[in-house]
Amino acid sequence: MAESGPLVECELVKIVIREESDQQYIFLKEKDGERTFPIVIGIYEAAAIDRRVRGIETPRPMTHDLLAHVIEALGARVLRVVVSSLRDNTFFARLELMRQDGEVDLDCRPSDAIALAAQTEAPIFVAEEVLESVTGM
Amino acid sequence: MAESGPLVECELVKIVIREESDQQYIFLKEKDGERTFPIVIGIYEAAAIDRRVRGIETPRPMTHDLLAHVIEALGARVLRVVVSSLRDNTFFARLELMRQDGEVDLDCRPSDAIALAAQTEAPIFVAEEVLESVTGM
Repeated sequence: MAESGPLVECELVKIVIREESDQQYIFLKEKDGERTFPIVIGIYEAAAIDRRVRGIETPRPMTHDLLAHVIEALGARVLRVVVSSLRDNTFFARLELMRQDGEVDLDCRPSDAIALAAQTEAPIFVAEEVLESVTGM
Repeated sequence: MAESGPLVECELVKIVIREESDQQYIFLKEKDGERTFPIVIGIYEAAAIDRRVRGIETPRPMTHDLLAHVIEALGARVLRVVVSSLRDNTFFARLELMRQDGEVDLDCRPSDAIALAAQTEAPIFVAEEVLESVTGM
């Protein structure tokens, strides 16, 4: 898909869950640099990411597990996830799937993208212009 | 897939959301009969089902929207969802997907199954033995 600019590989470095708050935070940091920024996400997605990072298994598949199973069962895999833009203080993301006959890209929220990346060990990319905009660097 | 017994088509007839509670309820009722039963689900899944039933659109795709988009983008569709068993007071379900080369079945929670059914208008089935067990009829 057409990108407006270069992408920077990032990694999930911190999850901050405050039970009493509606807003949870995940922090992404560029792999080959020091720029770091937070993304506000919901408790449900934060819990999903946290479970995955800690390797906690649940008796029944949770929603993001099901999402990963569907992708695999339909013969595709997560190529990468991309935090592609920031508009009105809201991040937008993209899920890039690879299947036999080519690539499929889908719009999603960064929280779902990163939950899925954490689960499938797919790399996380952030658009350089988003990184510049949120870090001022 | 092998079924332990006959299935009964049901429909979602009620969603009870109590913001102050951790447990929300959805009620399924058999289409050609009067048996009805509740399933306890989480607030996140209840909200997803409620949004879909009311036709409320969100600016960005929520997790179950993404799940439906992934299924469609990978060339499959939701054939039906099945509440297949009840063990230790926990319901288990199955998502049946159809793609060009055949059917794919995946274990899931009833809440995810019904959220997806509500979204894709796929039919909901419940194993007769589950219906008997929860309604005593």
